[in-house]
Amino acid sequence: MANSRFEYVKSFEQPDVLLPNTWIVVRIDGRGFHKLSDHYAFAKPNDRRALDLMNAAAVEVMKELPDLCIAYGVSDEFSTPSVLSSILAVNFLSGAMEQPLTGLISSRKLVTTIVSTFTAHYIYKWSEYFPERPLLPPYLPSFDGRAVIYPNNRILRDYMSWRQVDCHINNLYNTTFWTMVLQGGMSNTDAEQELKGTVSADKNEILFKRFGINYNNELEIYKKGTVLYRQYELEEPKPRKSSTEEESSVVESKQSRSQQDKIRKLRRKAQVVIDHVDIIKDEFWEKRPWILSGNPGKLPA
Amino acid sequence: MANSRFEYVKSFEQPDVLLPNTWIVVRIDGRGFHKLSDHYAFAKPNDRRALDLMNAAAVEVMKELPDLCIAYGVSDEFSTPSVLSSILAVNFLSGAMEQPLTGLISSRKLVTTIVSTFTAHYIYKWSEYFPERPLLPPYLPSFDGRAVIYPNNRILRDYMSWRQVDCHINNLYNTTFWTMVLQGGMSNTDAEQELKGTVSADKNEILFKRFGINYNNELEIYKKGTVLYRQYELEEPKPRKSSTEEESSVVESKQSRSQQDKIRKLRRKAQVVIDHVDIIKDEFWEKRPWILSGNPGKLPA
Amino acid sequence: MANSRFEYVKSFEQPDVLLPNTWIVVRIDGRGFHKLSDHYAFAKPNDRRALDLMNAAAVEVMKELPDLCIAYGVSDEFSTPSVLSSILAVNFLSGAMEQPLTGLISSRKLVTTIVSTFTAHYIYKWSEYFPERPLLPPYLPSFDGRAVIYPNNRILRDYMSWRQVDCHINNLYNTTFWTMVLQGGMSNTDAEQELKGTVSADKNEILFKRFGINYNNELEIYKKGTVLYRQYELEEPKPRKSSTEEESSVVESKQSRSQQDKIRKLRRKAQVVIDHVDIIKDEFWEKRPWILSGNPGKLPA
Amino acid sequence: MANSRFEYVKSFEQPDVLLPNTWIVVRIDGRGFHKLSDHYAFAKPNDRRALDLMNAAAVEVMKELPDLCIAYGVSDEFSTPSVLSSILAVNFLSGAMEQPLTGLISSRKLVTTIVSTFTAHYIYKWSEYFPERPLLPPYLPSFDGRAVIYPNNRILRDYMSWRQVDCHINNLYNTTFWTMVLQGGMSNTDAEQELKGTVSADKNEILFKRFGINYNNELEIYKKGTVLYRQYELEEPKPRKSSTEEESSVVESKQSRSQQDKIRKLRRKAQVVIDHVDIIKDEFWEKRPWILSGNPGKLPA
Repeated sequence: MANSRFEYVKSFEQPDVLLPNTWIVVRIDGRGFHKLSDHYAFAKPNDRRALDLMNAAAVEVMKELPDLCIAYGVSDEFSTPSVLSSILAVNFLSGAMEQPLTGLISSRKLVTTIVSTFTAHYIYKWSEYFPERPLLPPYLPSFDGRAVIYPNNRILRDYMSWRQVDCHINNLYNTTFWTMVLQGGMSNTDAEQELKGTVSADKNEILFKRFGINYNNELEIYKKGTVLYRQYELEEPKPRKSSTEEESSVVESKQSRSQQDKIRKLRRKAQVVIDHVDIIKDEFWEKRPWILSGNPGKLPA
Repeated sequence: MANSRFEYVKSFEQPDVLLPNTWIVVRIDGRGFHKLSDHYAFAKPNDRRALDLMNAAAVEVMKELPDLCIAYGVSDEFSTPSVLSSILAVNFLSGAMEQPLTGLISSRKLVTTIVSTFTAHYIYKWSEYFPERPLLPPYLPSFDGRAVIYPNNRILRDYMSWRQVDCHINNLYNTTFWTMVLQGGMSNTDAEQELKGTVSADKNEILFKRFGINYNNELEIYKKGTVLYRQYELEEPKPRKSSTEEESSVVESKQSRSQQDKIRKLRRKAQVVIDHVDIIKDEFWEKRPWILSGNPGKLPA
Repeated sequence: MANSRFEYVKSFEQPDVLLPNTWIVVRIDGRGFHKLSDHYAFAKPNDRRALDLMNAAAVEVMKELPDLCIAYGVSDEFSTPSVLSSILAVNFLSGAMEQPLTGLISSRKLVTTIVSTFTAHYIYKWSEYFPERPLLPPYLPSFDGRAVIYPNNRILRDYMSWRQVDCHINNLYNTTFWTMVLQGGMSNTDAEQELKGTVSADKNEILFKRFGINYNNELEIYKKGTVLYRQYELEEPKPRKSSTEEESSVVESKQSRSQQDKIRKLRRKAQVVIDHVDIIKDEFWEKRPWILSGNPGKLPA
Repeated sequence: MANSRFEYVKSFEQPDVLLPNTWIVVRIDGRGFHKLSDHYAFAKPNDRRALDLMNAAAVEVMKELPDLCIAYGVSDEFSTPSVLSSILAVNFLSGAMEQPLTGLISSRKLVTTIVSTFTAHYIYKWSEYFPERPLLPPYLPSFDGRAVIYPNNRILRDYMSWRQVDCHINNLYNTTFWTMVLQGGMSNTDAEQELKGTVSADKNEILFKRFGINYNNELEIYKKGTVLYRQYELEEPKPRKSSTEEESSVVESKQSRSQQDKIRKLRRKAQVVIDHVDIIKDEFWEKRPWILSGNPGKLPA
């Protein structure tokens, strides 16, 4: 064959195989969204439409990739460069070695597929959420992504809790800061200075005493972030499990290929819902055991 | 801090650092483009608008990311599932360790940023190239990507040559196959059967004798694929170098940060051009030494 | 500093961090032991002294590295090039991030430390086990090693079971083969030919009918391989656990540094024992819960 | 097959392939040699026999593994925990993909094989160099190792230069420090205090004025470290090459398997020599072009 002289270059590609029976969390972060949110005049501290667009793109990703079990998105405009981020967790099972997601075989394929699909839907849906502010290069949104492996359910839940605690801390700060600036007429520097070293109670008091704002009445989407999952009939929480059991690991290691295909088909039938609830306590997970077990539940009537 | 109990999860993130002083090629492949090209009725064997859209998206990526030195796109509708693919090569220098691309520090960030930026422009520009066929989920295009390290110029060129040889082989096959089917009225199976075991001369003869087609007259974009690079004044090829010199490695290893910023600024000033020429022979590279050297040339008057 | 010009080379070292809260199995294989076992005239199918030397070296490794929880060695002279191999499992906890083993911080350090320590003791003790056959280069034994991550207890046990099943299958084959050759006077080729396609029952029958050998009476070390662990007082197996519980994951994720130091001290006090028992069934693990839990048991009186 | 139920565990092993056409440096460090050198009463600041033993072990490794092109060892007793270390560079070529070193196919195999072989010879030869101080566990020497990839000759040489500069700096410091302590009767703390902030000239002066020691007269092995390579007839340095040429990359990328076998055979015929010379300047490399080119030279008559 004419090209055999060059074919040796194929040997430079490094293999890159996913570790089976673990949770793989793909985290997507907006690139340069600080500048971008200025350009498209996102509301501060939270832009409802920008969040809804993030969530809508994530829903589409979950619908396209049935192996994704849960996603959590958090908005955090002020304190980080990555403004908006979204997390998707995939339960990767060894039985699916050859093809963990349809057409995917490696960690980089998993991550780039999710990031690309997310980007495609985000760009595609932009005009629906911001009809009066059309996209214009060079301010075209894009995202980067990374995959992290969590070896069992307990650690995955701790990761999710970490993100939700972060959401709360950042949102309380941002809400107080921007209220001081936008309603209180303070400079950014003065507001930042006054908030330095304050604890949650201090910020709640500033909001309430100076501005008559009860932080508890803020929208749940701002305080809790957004969790996406497939909807089946909620189950009764079982009696409190032992701590050992709670730490149980990613289970269905040895499903056959046909079992997996069947599960994927069942997952596609379930609706992906957008929720803004506590995911730190047990209740959320106990009522929706299918998220961690990977076994589809009963479709609602 | 309230979230310290969960912060240990950060230790699960694996570091992922680029190898300095090497060529990093990011290869982007369309996901499920076989089905997608049917849905949007791409012309066979080559759809000019689909290729132009790929190239336009790649141009935007190169404009946004000045560290990208060259890109090569090849269309290959028939024989592979990945139909359209595009390759971008970045010369990653150790001096830029902290921030190889603006804001990037790791291999996965490099790949996901390029894939996401490419996807964003592809979706954004779709309606310009296919005004009468609007995008409609679930047929939303997306891409996966991977990075491969090539340790020196010679091997990078061999990689590029490999892709262009592949382009030629596939395009000759596809042109012959689809001419037999579309003009010759053969079934797919019969055409495939007849082409089995044929060499280039056989295919050229089928095209010429049966259909009066001289393959040499086909468009260069189909026969050679597309190469993108920044345009400076062409240079006179120097006298043939020694083989050792040719194999020379990625050089400017120890540039300071400010030198790199200056180079990036100069690169942004150059126009990114779309070309369809031979990149296997020395001439292309000798006239455009800035591609491999990384040093910007002289801007055309 | 005079050497700053060269210091950039440090940036080429890739980070390499262990994944916390998983089982890391380091597998050691003899290099070229087929040739070596000929040179030093190891007995076939099993050389008791060679096995005892492997086990003695592994005991020393476990004594030096208290984080190692269990080791399994299997002899397999005939069918594989790696003749003798030994497996050591270390439970790597996230709390010990900074220093998982004394002085170790990376996967390659873990593996090379274990391989080097094993080699050192193997060479050092050789003359004790083979006093009449002194080592002589170039026939100096050496080993290679690799680390594999298993994310939970169930999968670690399945790995151990896989090795013990392999030990049984190979030993039955080798015992039969060498009996046919050494006692039955058959050629290697004839014995191999006759054994092709036979199942266990066939081999048992050949041994018993032709040579009067009851395979069950073979030494346990040959049939079961060798398992090494720290000895504490055996515990009563608890009532059969639920399957979920059984699959429980690597637990003590968040131990403090001082807790870990204390555990290491307790582990050093326990004797490392050499055993040849079934490790596939639950009994072995239930009576010795400290192996998987990582919590030292009660020292025997 | 009886063990099929457990065989899925094989899918957990991650592939690990070497990057072709690069220099791979395996660096070996003594584990806990600070304590060990006290126990066996190594001389300070340099123990000639300990260095000779390191070098002898490295020679054996180079003899066993013909793909190793050069090794550099440096002694550094005082300032680092790793006391003695040795570096071996292997030129890994893509043509040798299937079997880069005899029997090796992965990065971890390369590293563990080198570390284990080194350890084996170090233990085996100990009694020859320290006949009056027999090895006694738990003070059995062992080593860890790591592999770093350097993409071209220039960077490999810079790495080697970095190590030799380090050797010089450390040896001057250690020689001065231990002379002040052992001959000058100062306490460790006082000597350390006085040396703080001194430059090379200061240390030379202390040695000369107070103790009559001319540092230049110290043994080359202490000042320059040890370089090992295969000995062929020295060549005349060619006229000074262009800077581009100097940075030339690892070349013989496309050797056939049989060419490689031939080269290995030729390498085995060459003697491995122990030298203590400058490896920073060009002369060393120009006279011994076979080290970087990989092509064996002419055997001395």
